Amino acid sequence: MRDYVVKYDDLCRVTKEMFMGLGYSDLQASTVTECLVEADLRHKHSHGVAAMMTYVSHLKAGNLHLDAPEPTTVFETPVSLVLDGHSGVGYCIADLAVKKTIEKAKKTGVCITTVRQANHYGFAAHWSEMMAKEGFIGISSTNTVRCVCPTRSAERNLGTNPMTFAFPTAGDEPMFNLDMATCVMAHGKLVRSQVFAESGVVPREVIIDGKGNVVTDFKEALEILHHGDDRSDAPKPDTGGLVPLGGVTEILSGHKGYGLAMLVELLTGGLSGGTPSKFIPLAHEGICFFFMAIDPALFGDAQGVREHVKYIINEYRKTAALDPDLPVLMPGDKSRAARAKAMKEGIELSPEIVDILKEVAGLTKKETELESILVHK
Amino acid sequence: MRDYVVKYDDLCRVTKEMFMGLGYSDLQASTVTECLVEADLRHKHSHGVAAMMTYVSHLKAGNLHLDAPEPTTVFETPVSLVLDGHSGVGYCIADLAVKKTIEKAKKTGVCITTVRQANHYGFAAHWSEMMAKEGFIGISSTNTVRCVCPTRSAERNLGTNPMTFAFPTAGDEPMFNLDMATCVMAHGKLVRSQVFAESGVVPREVIIDGKGNVVTDFKEALEILHHGDDRSDAPKPDTGGLVPLGGVTEILSGHKGYGLAMLVELLTGGLSGGTPSKFIPLAHEGICFFFMAIDPALFGDAQGVREHVKYIINEYRKTAALDPDLPVLMPGDKSRAARAKAMKEGIELSPEIVDILKEVAGLTKKETELESILVHK
Repeated sequence: MRDYVVKYDDLCRVTKEMFMGLGYSDLQASTVTECLVEADLRHKHSHGVAAMMTYVSHLKAGNLHLDAPEPTTVFETPVSLVLDGHSGVGYCIADLAVKKTIEKAKKTGVCITTVRQANHYGFAAHWSEMMAKEGFIGISSTNTVRCVCPTRSAERNLGTNPMTFAFPTAGDEPMFNLDMATCVMAHGKLVRSQVFAESGVVPREVIIDGKGNVVTDFKEALEILHHGDDRSDAPKPDTGGLVPLGGVTEILSGHKGYGLAMLVELLTGGLSGGTPSKFIPLAHEGICFFFMAIDPALFGDAQGVREHVKYIINEYRKTAALDPDLPVLMPGDKSRAARAKAMKEGIELSPEIVDILKEVAGLTKKETELESILVHK
Repeated sequence: MRDYVVKYDDLCRVTKEMFMGLGYSDLQASTVTECLVEADLRHKHSHGVAAMMTYVSHLKAGNLHLDAPEPTTVFETPVSLVLDGHSGVGYCIADLAVKKTIEKAKKTGVCITTVRQANHYGFAAHWSEMMAKEGFIGISSTNTVRCVCPTRSAERNLGTNPMTFAFPTAGDEPMFNLDMATCVMAHGKLVRSQVFAESGVVPREVIIDGKGNVVTDFKEALEILHHGDDRSDAPKPDTGGLVPLGGVTEILSGHKGYGLAMLVELLTGGLSGGTPSKFIPLAHEGICFFFMAIDPALFGDAQGVREHVKYIINEYRKTAALDPDLPVLMPGDKSRAARAKAMKEGIELSPEIVDILKEVAGLTKKETELESILVHK
């Protein structure tokens, strides 16, 4: 089966129409669409338009509330903000939280925001980048549904807990944008991998079963993560799961990835008074966010600080690669290159993703609109 | 050869005397001694009293200035501080920087401090813990001499770049204290490992040679890291080195550890206007620090926030271990247990460490004092 190619504007238009068909308001649909299509542009298809079907299930299960009130302020100081998201649309909650974070940081130079009772907000770097585009160092993190096992255990109770850091730079040096799940491999990257699906094999140290044994069979991996049609909250075994960054044992420092995942639990759920990943249902209801914006002007002339950041990045850009075909990269480079290519040549979508889109199009009576924008590669 | 056991107070007294014998002032000697012996208490011997001999070389080479002026303020806002350490004693620079950070955070709830032109400050968690003891969430990070290779390269130009995060909790739950180098294994942990020295073998994925091949021979590893008597800044090959957290390739996400190491370069050198690890001489002169103190009261009633942090930690303390002899730990647990044991039973020092102490005792005419506190295990 061949891949499809879709133009950016077309995919945005039809995705938004489908969301509105699901009952999203114009603003909700725009906000979600922007973030999902942005992910597809960057080849982060695990956080792209295919997620739409997941939201259909969440809506059906009553875990995602399109009519939730606007996020409310729980607590506030000149340099901090705590919001309650009332289980509304995660993207809209994050959008509002980040905008408020930037607004406050413009006055004081720094703002730390935590959000409880939120919902899935897509790829975490979207939000740190939003801060960096306004000239701030941006940090964005979220806890998630439980899918990672702490070191020395096969109990699946931590989220993939991404941490992202975006630095504005100067001149022609693009933004530094580190975006990493604190496990070896993010949930979506594993379950939606075409490579693993075709080979049937997952690399060692990525996932373990309920007894702590390394799993390399792709189908078994999917079963462990319950990545089937059943997205309900019916009780399921909660053992076996993804491995923290560093691997299964402490020999190669798996405990460091576990420590980072715990750190994210404290920054998100801990500081917001919210729910830890352990108790987040499969539908993401109640997950928590952490955002931080830091003005480079806290450390001197802002432009000078940005120039110095650029100087350091450039010094590391000179690093010699072992293989000329595999150049040394900066965090953010891969995404940026993929984005530029997709903007020019169109967004590639696999037949699996298109099947999901067709399903949602069927539900929302947008079959013709979807069909009209799909071109075989 | 049998290990030695030394009492905490004795080791502090004699270590301080030796430092004063090297020309350190009373205050300088106290500050350095406290941090070094604290590391030995916790079995972090890589950052313990054995480091003294390294400082002897740094003093001799002129990279460590006991008569450096007090750190000066380069830039300041109500929520930030940039200091210049003038290549003085790193521990004293860090001590002053952290005290000022706490002082400022007491007024505004948050302070971010960067320091340039500093020097080695021991184990990074000492400083985040200092903030947590005052009720703040503490972050401490430093760049270091170059010993880590970026993903896809065998050029050694990044520091081990530790990141540490300490959270005050409530009631009987001790401090959460994550202390991690952003490479698979920290430099000192490798070169001072008795296990590796005895077996002659280093685990795979810890270190690579100048061609990017994995090195498992301990002696070869030491040669790559130039861990010999020559601590001078004479030109040496700068290829081959430690591997970023996640391993050599991108399959198990070595690029995440590399990304974290780059992040630390930007937070420390980038925001302070200081020197990246790439240009730090072997004697540490000019390394940069990053500190941050966050008041839990930024997120509501401070005690309530601390109770919620405790609740989340406790939920994860319930995680079932695969092997009852290897319980699931929280960041900080291992250090705390080692410390409690050493406080009660004495600090264990290997014959290698004692040999180093004897060398410094010889230089400072404290042989009798040292001999009098050493007891064979």
